[in-house]
Amino acid sequence: MDILILNGPNLNRLGKREPDIYGTVTLKDIEKRTADYGSKKGITVTCKQSNWEGQLIDWIHEAAEKMDGIIINPGAFTHYSYAIRDAVASIDVPVIEVHISNIHAREDFRKNSVIAPVSGGQISGFGPAGYEMAIDYLVRRKNV
Amino acid sequence: MDILILNGPNLNRLGKREPDIYGTVTLKDIEKRTADYGSKKGITVTCKQSNWEGQLIDWIHEAAEKMDGIIINPGAFTHYSYAIRDAVASIDVPVIEVHISNIHAREDFRKNSVIAPVSGGQISGFGPAGYEMAIDYLVRRKNV
Amino acid sequence: MDILILNGPNLNRLGKREPDIYGTVTLKDIEKRTADYGSKKGITVTCKQSNWEGQLIDWIHEAAEKMDGIIINPGAFTHYSYAIRDAVASIDVPVIEVHISNIHAREDFRKNSVIAPVSGGQISGFGPAGYEMAIDYLVRRKNV
Amino acid sequence: MDILILNGPNLNRLGKREPDIYGTVTLKDIEKRTADYGSKKGITVTCKQSNWEGQLIDWIHEAAEKMDGIIINPGAFTHYSYAIRDAVASIDVPVIEVHISNIHAREDFRKNSVIAPVSGGQISGFGPAGYEMAIDYLVRRKNV
Amino acid sequence: MDILILNGPNLNRLGKREPDIYGTVTLKDIEKRTADYGSKKGITVTCKQSNWEGQLIDWIHEAAEKMDGIIINPGAFTHYSYAIRDAVASIDVPVIEVHISNIHAREDFRKNSVIAPVSGGQISGFGPAGYEMAIDYLVRRKNV
Amino acid sequence: MDILILNGPNLNRLGKREPDIYGTVTLKDIEKRTADYGSKKGITVTCKQSNWEGQLIDWIHEAAEKMDGIIINPGAFTHYSYAIRDAVASIDVPVIEVHISNIHAREDFRKNSVIAPVSGGQISGFGPAGYEMAIDYLVRRKNV
Amino acid sequence: MDILILNGPNLNRLGKREPDIYGTVTLKDIEKRTADYGSKKGITVTCKQSNWEGQLIDWIHEAAEKMDGIIINPGAFTHYSYAIRDAVASIDVPVIEVHISNIHAREDFRKNSVIAPVSGGQISGFGPAGYEMAIDYLVRRKNV
Amino acid sequence: MDILILNGPNLNRLGKREPDIYGTVTLKDIEKRTADYGSKKGITVTCKQSNWEGQLIDWIHEAAEKMDGIIINPGAFTHYSYAIRDAVASIDVPVIEVHISNIHAREDFRKNSVIAPVSGGQISGFGPAGYEMAIDYLVRRKNV
Amino acid sequence: MDILILNGPNLNRLGKREPDIYGTVTLKDIEKRTADYGSKKGITVTCKQSNWEGQLIDWIHEAAEKMDGIIINPGAFTHYSYAIRDAVASIDVPVIEVHISNIHAREDFRKNSVIAPVSGGQISGFGPAGYEMAIDYLVRRKNV
Amino acid sequence: MDILILNGPNLNRLGKREPDIYGTVTLKDIEKRTADYGSKKGITVTCKQSNWEGQLIDWIHEAAEKMDGIIINPGAFTHYSYAIRDAVASIDVPVIEVHISNIHAREDFRKNSVIAPVSGGQISGFGPAGYEMAIDYLVRRKNV
Amino acid sequence: MDILILNGPNLNRLGKREPDIYGTVTLKDIEKRTADYGSKKGITVTCKQSNWEGQLIDWIHEAAEKMDGIIINPGAFTHYSYAIRDAVASIDVPVIEVHISNIHAREDFRKNSVIAPVSGGQISGFGPAGYEMAIDYLVRRKNV
Amino acid sequence: MDILILNGPNLNRLGKREPDIYGTVTLKDIEKRTADYGSKKGITVTCKQSNWEGQLIDWIHEAAEKMDGIIINPGAFTHYSYAIRDAVASIDVPVIEVHISNIHAREDFRKNSVIAPVSGGQISGFGPAGYEMAIDYLVRRKNV
Repeated sequence: MDILILNGPNLNRLGKREPDIYGTVTLKDIEKRTADYGSKKGITVTCKQSNWEGQLIDWIHEAAEKMDGIIINPGAFTHYSYAIRDAVASIDVPVIEVHISNIHAREDFRKNSVIAPVSGGQISGFGPAGYEMAIDYLVRRKNV
Repeated sequence: MDILILNGPNLNRLGKREPDIYGTVTLKDIEKRTADYGSKKGITVTCKQSNWEGQLIDWIHEAAEKMDGIIINPGAFTHYSYAIRDAVASIDVPVIEVHISNIHAREDFRKNSVIAPVSGGQISGFGPAGYEMAIDYLVRRKNV
Repeated sequence: MDILILNGPNLNRLGKREPDIYGTVTLKDIEKRTADYGSKKGITVTCKQSNWEGQLIDWIHEAAEKMDGIIINPGAFTHYSYAIRDAVASIDVPVIEVHISNIHAREDFRKNSVIAPVSGGQISGFGPAGYEMAIDYLVRRKNV
Repeated sequence: MDILILNGPNLNRLGKREPDIYGTVTLKDIEKRTADYGSKKGITVTCKQSNWEGQLIDWIHEAAEKMDGIIINPGAFTHYSYAIRDAVASIDVPVIEVHISNIHAREDFRKNSVIAPVSGGQISGFGPAGYEMAIDYLVRRKNV
Repeated sequence: MDILILNGPNLNRLGKREPDIYGTVTLKDIEKRTADYGSKKGITVTCKQSNWEGQLIDWIHEAAEKMDGIIINPGAFTHYSYAIRDAVASIDVPVIEVHISNIHAREDFRKNSVIAPVSGGQISGFGPAGYEMAIDYLVRRKNV
Repeated sequence: MDILILNGPNLNRLGKREPDIYGTVTLKDIEKRTADYGSKKGITVTCKQSNWEGQLIDWIHEAAEKMDGIIINPGAFTHYSYAIRDAVASIDVPVIEVHISNIHAREDFRKNSVIAPVSGGQISGFGPAGYEMAIDYLVRRKNV
Repeated sequence: MDILILNGPNLNRLGKREPDIYGTVTLKDIEKRTADYGSKKGITVTCKQSNWEGQLIDWIHEAAEKMDGIIINPGAFTHYSYAIRDAVASIDVPVIEVHISNIHAREDFRKNSVIAPVSGGQISGFGPAGYEMAIDYLVRRKNV
Repeated sequence: MDILILNGPNLNRLGKREPDIYGTVTLKDIEKRTADYGSKKGITVTCKQSNWEGQLIDWIHEAAEKMDGIIINPGAFTHYSYAIRDAVASIDVPVIEVHISNIHAREDFRKNSVIAPVSGGQISGFGPAGYEMAIDYLVRRKNV
Repeated sequence: MDILILNGPNLNRLGKREPDIYGTVTLKDIEKRTADYGSKKGITVTCKQSNWEGQLIDWIHEAAEKMDGIIINPGAFTHYSYAIRDAVASIDVPVIEVHISNIHAREDFRKNSVIAPVSGGQISGFGPAGYEMAIDYLVRRKNV
Repeated sequence: MDILILNGPNLNRLGKREPDIYGTVTLKDIEKRTADYGSKKGITVTCKQSNWEGQLIDWIHEAAEKMDGIIINPGAFTHYSYAIRDAVASIDVPVIEVHISNIHAREDFRKNSVIAPVSGGQISGFGPAGYEMAIDYLVRRKNV
Repeated sequence: MDILILNGPNLNRLGKREPDIYGTVTLKDIEKRTADYGSKKGITVTCKQSNWEGQLIDWIHEAAEKMDGIIINPGAFTHYSYAIRDAVASIDVPVIEVHISNIHAREDFRKNSVIAPVSGGQISGFGPAGYEMAIDYLVRRKNV
Repeated sequence: MDILILNGPNLNRLGKREPDIYGTVTLKDIEKRTADYGSKKGITVTCKQSNWEGQLIDWIHEAAEKMDGIIINPGAFTHYSYAIRDAVASIDVPVIEVHISNIHAREDFRKNSVIAPVSGGQISGFGPAGYEMAIDYLVRRKNV
């Protein structure tokens, strides 16, 4: 089973960025931990990050034929990138939306995800553990 | 570790209620499956359901001293019960919000949770698996 | 044919409550008159009233297997009880919404019924006669 | 007793128009059936239809002195014709608003009736039976 | 000097229609009085009334070449007839908007005139005198 | 008959201020012309101007016992001074609102008058002539 | 003189609940202090609390014939319970709304009280003293 | 192939009406040019214009059985005539919406077409050429 | 203890102004009664009134060093004077907001107080007694 | 004559992406067909596609000096890319907006084009034929 | 070169007022520092402050003939004083808006300046330095 | 001292782009002039421009460790790029927002900056001088 984890803008700043909200763990740490978590379950986890909307769209398209699941934390694109929304809607691979902080408990603009209406589900507020919860779900889903 | 699972209005109709949206599994099945899932991890899972807002509030209050975590699917109360919101805010036990369907992909009124701003996180759209994902998180959280 | 008539909050105050809007007939009178009206047509009419949202939901659920139709005047719950809406949506029995006053001619908040999108129809503004009109419709509907 | 039934724009297309929503019965059928229904009760029912707002207003004015009641299905004018609203408000004859489909369960713009605040009541969602229910009410009203 | 006075829907009901708001003078009386008022000043006043939006538009177009000024009370069309607005904008004759009641002191929907942004001015709340004030203005305007 | 004409903020800049919108006539000219117009009809017209909201309110109060009518051009206060609105509502003298430009044809914020709901009528868009039209109305009103 | 004090959802958590906002005094303390305060003035004060909307409505109805005044802190129901609003409107006993915190200085949703338009007045932001201020008012009111 | 071209209110004023926006070509010219354009392709083009909403609706109904396509420029009705919208929805003939000016680049109210959600497509901003582009499309569509 | 009572615009018209809403007692009476009430408790009550926003702000500033509490009825400034709001926020003296009528039960614009978010509490709807209730609170507050 | 056709995000997925909405023709097919269509008319059509907003902006800038017209289908950028809007406004080349589906008949967010106010016109809902209609217009426009 | 610096309501409280937001420097200090800054550049800087809207308007008018530039910090008037906006629009002297705190980073109501649409530019969030930056700009502007 | 100046989309078109709004100076000119200005003060000014959101974010991240200040003109991204907002919030370097035109005096969508709430201040409407004013501020800030 192949899972792609996509992290959007500014997630490369994790650890350095607003630590009260996002914690002090770096993206490198999370990517390593999550890949290990997957590999223990026999899953190949590929992690990518970009601050470029177009890059994320291209990666989603490429995953259409190659991946069994996508876990995406679209960062701030969550709130306005209808282009990423359409990319998600254009493929058949299940896409799970993960947010490290509880977006529903922050500024008003963060409460709305333009991507959620076409995603397979949303996990919000559980810190880095959210990525592992999403992997668990994709595994469960496959085994059903 | 003691976890309380609260299900709100109309979840007792699961299996019979709008099966295209909610599936055909009954609440009894889910409660059993989830309790088994917990007990395998050495956790005592207590499941309660009520269509009465006041009952849910009373149960949340009672859990304040007795439980290590609450998993709540507030059903339609999600969208207007500021009273349940205040109950959640009034206790120190972590409260995880679970929705069987992806509430962000349905009618407009279902997109907003008045409870999420004070909950510990939200899991939405993973069917009955959402309850188990919440248990996993509460366990992870304790072990950190 | 079995019909359940449910009256929601404050309808037990009919006759005493704001008589300019609701008239001076009591709920007892209406229930009697409506039951008589039904029994002349060979219909068993059962009347219940509660100020408790949870009670109304439980009664709707119970009616799912036993009744041929429900006539509901949800009182103020009309305007915010998504929980009653979901209860109505969760059963196959036809549910007719009745309002004694013309809710579309009053305060802004009374113009919107969160229940109407899932009800079988709405009768508004005909005083106590509304209940009998609903019975007539349920009879007609059965005979089609 | 003389009752005028006014049908607004596109109701002449009934039977041919969007049959999933409006059914396959034609306006001719409904007019005949309703007139028969009235005549059995000793009531003269006159049916008119127009796609022209001005025509409907003129007919409402004419009815002011001649009719004992008006039953109006204003079609799409329901949602924006403040001119018809003012016509209804300008006469003393009781005016009942009827909608074949449940307007509260359709597109947002159909939920609001600009006419309802000045009408004698609204019947919505009962198909062609709505006209007969309105006749029943006008008869009841007279006999009170 | 030739002035056209156009009255829109339901103004033919003046005197009979909601006398608390509009007074008991009939449209005939007003038209006569206003024509007399004009003729004393050497002005030919032509008065027309219609409940038909299309008719009012046709009359506005016809006036484009023949009249020196138009005084219009668009009745309820004031609030939604963008078609009359465009008709007014399509001619060079000055068009004065008159309202018998003070539309800014009534229901919310009456506060907005979609025609005012293209009219030559608005007179609101002075009863039948408003028409004479408009004539005075058109005379003043010509003499400047 | 005694009439008070009140001009609000920035009207002392007339002639110099945005001449495309307000013309080149000064306030002095208008006040003189209007007073002359009144005096020909045997009316004493008193003109005051202030950029101070409190001053305008004090003048309105003082007029309560002394004046037969007030003509007010509240300038920008039209759109937010609920204090002037309450002052107008607190006296029995008829108060006519005059605007030199057509406020309904300008920026959105200028379309709403918070004072109009309690004023005796509104004249908008007729340039300095508006003051004379208001005088005419007050005379007419007295003679009825 | 008999006064009923009703406290709504989560007020039983006072002292334990968000002490920065609500202070550390418990509801028991407040009820005792307020009853003592009343009894010094010869007033019988009865205190009840419930997290159940239906219970509060029933108590309001029961008070209709027995009490001289009601002091209600509806907690979160303040912001959405049109059912409690209708209950208050259905009785003739004066009902005073009390809020411990200043609801106008908190989250947006707390600024609006759906009950205030039918209550006898609102006291907000004075801590537990608010109940005593309400008693004082009811006494004053009676003695006028 | 038979195509009906319907022009709505004020389009008969083309050439004379606001030439900066709509150009100086008259409707007669456009109708002639468009009919010629059609006839060169072997299509019978019938052109009608009315300022009367009811007339446009009647023509749409009549076209239901006779025409292969309708091209409609509803003028200002575009923005509020739900009655024309329902007429379009009531027939199976493809209906193409054409606007001479770019409605999306003008006043806010012109940006929304209540008809577009049920039309076969919208062409906006290409001047009189828009009608010919619509003919081309209907021909293409037939030949697919 | 020194308390300043500030009354805003139009409160000098009390007794004469809209007596259905504000009663027939004059401001002079209220000021005298309230000062007497204070002096019985050993408090010096100073009463001021102004229709001038700037004056009220100056008085608030002056009170910063001299007074132990301010009771303010900002009249219509309540709803838009962010300048008074900032004045209140700029001092450390407790400021209590009093409204004679129940502002939450009147026009929509009166429901919102821009001052309340920075005031020490709000008393609304108790007539002139509100000032005395505010004094009581300030005394209580001091004695805590 | 040189025309640039720009396709925005996810249009490279045409044929595979949501075929109910967008059909089964691929972008390659459309580009070929459209270029052939152009070349028959002696026009050089250059087709580019990108999921990257910045790329589209760069291409628009480059076209400023080289192209005679641009046809753009901005995909989801239509609804939020004010940057593309400004790019279109920054050049003098005519830019035509094309949408394959009827954007006015879909989700609310798709109804608004932030680009249309500065584009030369909009063609929406005609499938791949829209590109050819845009070419026709650019040819017509040149020949005028 | 003569520059007028106007400070609006509550800026006289600088240093004492909410020091977290506005700092501890007093207005006197700022005025002195800014005047010194100007005088070093050969500019006469006149500083005035008022809590009275009318006073600020009068000063703006007086500056029309005497000053080469105005720097205004309208304080809370920024957000609602359309009267000051009109005063600024009524003169030809350049007017620069300065805010000590970053108004775009505070409460929602502070984000909108009703004055900015007619001012020459806005400087927000640079503390007292903002006044000097504005002087620099006015000097630069003159020297261009 | 090292300062980075970032210009966003379409600013490379300065001089050619809408010269009424943005002037005729090119970006090259501005960059040169601003760098010279800085170098006279001993500051190294680095200028970059991109139409690509991702590029701007990357540059902001890179500046986190290397620069003493960033001056950003985000162009149209100002109004929707929450991703750039988060980038700015993720670093400790002071970021000053500069706009050449007065964004508060243009289209509604340009009035709101999603970046301003996390920026160090905003300078709007001073043409190219804005960049130099920002440099001055950063120098001042350092020297405090």
